Amino acid sequence: MVLVGTRNPLNMGAAARAMSNFGVLNLRVVNPWEAAFREARSAVGAADLLANAAEYTTVAEAVADCTRVVGTTAVGHRELRQPLRRLEEGAPLIRKELGAGRVALLFGSEKVGLSNRDLSHCHWLMRIPTREEHASMNLAQAVSVCLYELVRQGKAPRAKKEKARATAGDLERVTETLLQALRASGYVKPRAAGVTEEKVRRMVHRLQLNTCDAEVWLGMLRQIAWKLGVSDEEQNRRSR
Amino acid sequence: MVLVGTRNPLNMGAAARAMSNFGVLNLRVVNPWEAAFREARSAVGAADLLANAAEYTTVAEAVADCTRVVGTTAVGHRELRQPLRRLEEGAPLIRKELGAGRVALLFGSEKVGLSNRDLSHCHWLMRIPTREEHASMNLAQAVSVCLYELVRQGKAPRAKKEKARATAGDLERVTETLLQALRASGYVKPRAAGVTEEKVRRMVHRLQLNTCDAEVWLGMLRQIAWKLGVSDEEQNRRSR
Repeated sequence: MVLVGTRNPLNMGAAARAMSNFGVLNLRVVNPWEAAFREARSAVGAADLLANAAEYTTVAEAVADCTRVVGTTAVGHRELRQPLRRLEEGAPLIRKELGAGRVALLFGSEKVGLSNRDLSHCHWLMRIPTREEHASMNLAQAVSVCLYELVRQGKAPRAKKEKARATAGDLERVTETLLQALRASGYVKPRAAGVTEEKVRRMVHRLQLNTCDAEVWLGMLRQIAWKLGVSDEEQNRRSR
Repeated sequence: MVLVGTRNPLNMGAAARAMSNFGVLNLRVVNPWEAAFREARSAVGAADLLANAAEYTTVAEAVADCTRVVGTTAVGHRELRQPLRRLEEGAPLIRKELGAGRVALLFGSEKVGLSNRDLSHCHWLMRIPTREEHASMNLAQAVSVCLYELVRQGKAPRAKKEKARATAGDLERVTETLLQALRASGYVKPRAAGVTEEKVRRMVHRLQLNTCDAEVWLGMLRQIAWKLGVSDEEQNRRSR
């Protein structure tokens, strides 16, 4: 990660924090505007990374040991002389290159980005797919987004096992207890009792309850039914 | 995009800028620490977006018209009660959901993130794959990364014809009415009232109700609550 001509030390600190978040720990800076950038308080949790940044006076020196140099740009109206790739296209190429050598990722100053001279050190350029009407990102946010794309794995680990689905028997007990409460509350009109019962059962089936939740629902509904005057005995009889 | 209890207006401005960069233009804030956040200078190019942010005093109100509520977390040591997905897994689900309704993406305060109570409004949670040793990101950087992942593939969401999802507001009314019935039935122990409330809210969110079913559930629970002695007036007051 190479920051070129960065003006605001707070942005440098924030960039350092993002690097640390994503495990990219080698920071180089070229001609920072503020000599005392190393104490920037925005480097939350990344103070060492910032303090240990290597400082250079030219881009050429800063990237001398790298096998690929990639510049970032918001494009704008500038004529570009190098291949330009969207971040999501470029990131896999960078990951691949990292197997062979060091890759330098260059970010220019907040005001003007990388100069044409800076860009001339780059093998290719990369841009974040921001919208045309407002392309220019905050420096540290741009760093965050690029590093996220670089470290993000194509395959995310599967979400942990979902809880076991409730059985039809569980659902039926929930349905029946709910119906008891509804009858006791006067919600069920006697003439429509059959229709209501089916409707309630279908609704309970749509809930996609797991076994734990089914048990909690049953507990809640039993308590409500009991309070409405449905006896334990009746609850048990109907629930079988 | 919902910012909950954000402390530093500069972070709010920076988040607004990231939103504008990625074309996400609807900002809502819940109880910001600094009342005068709307002038934050960090909202470069996004001053209007920040100035027009809608302000709420509860998460429930802020997400009332949303069909999915997704919380962000750095995890840490907290025990989570909802499904947790990595950003790259979660983003496609959000894009899909956007075809059916509004999605709220919640970010907590810089210091402590989202509280358990905030999280109880969420259908599921998402985390950015930062490294374990330094998981906590700057707020606006986290916003940037999430929005980048959401927009990067640029595929328009397909509008599939499913029954409309219940909004968070619908679910909150169901939750509140159920809680009234549970309180009246003696199910809720006063000492555990807060915990029970969060538990019940999470369970209701897991039900995946559509709008029709939500209405039927609400009708059933209202009748039950009424029979248990909860007055109409109280029902209406609490349901707002």
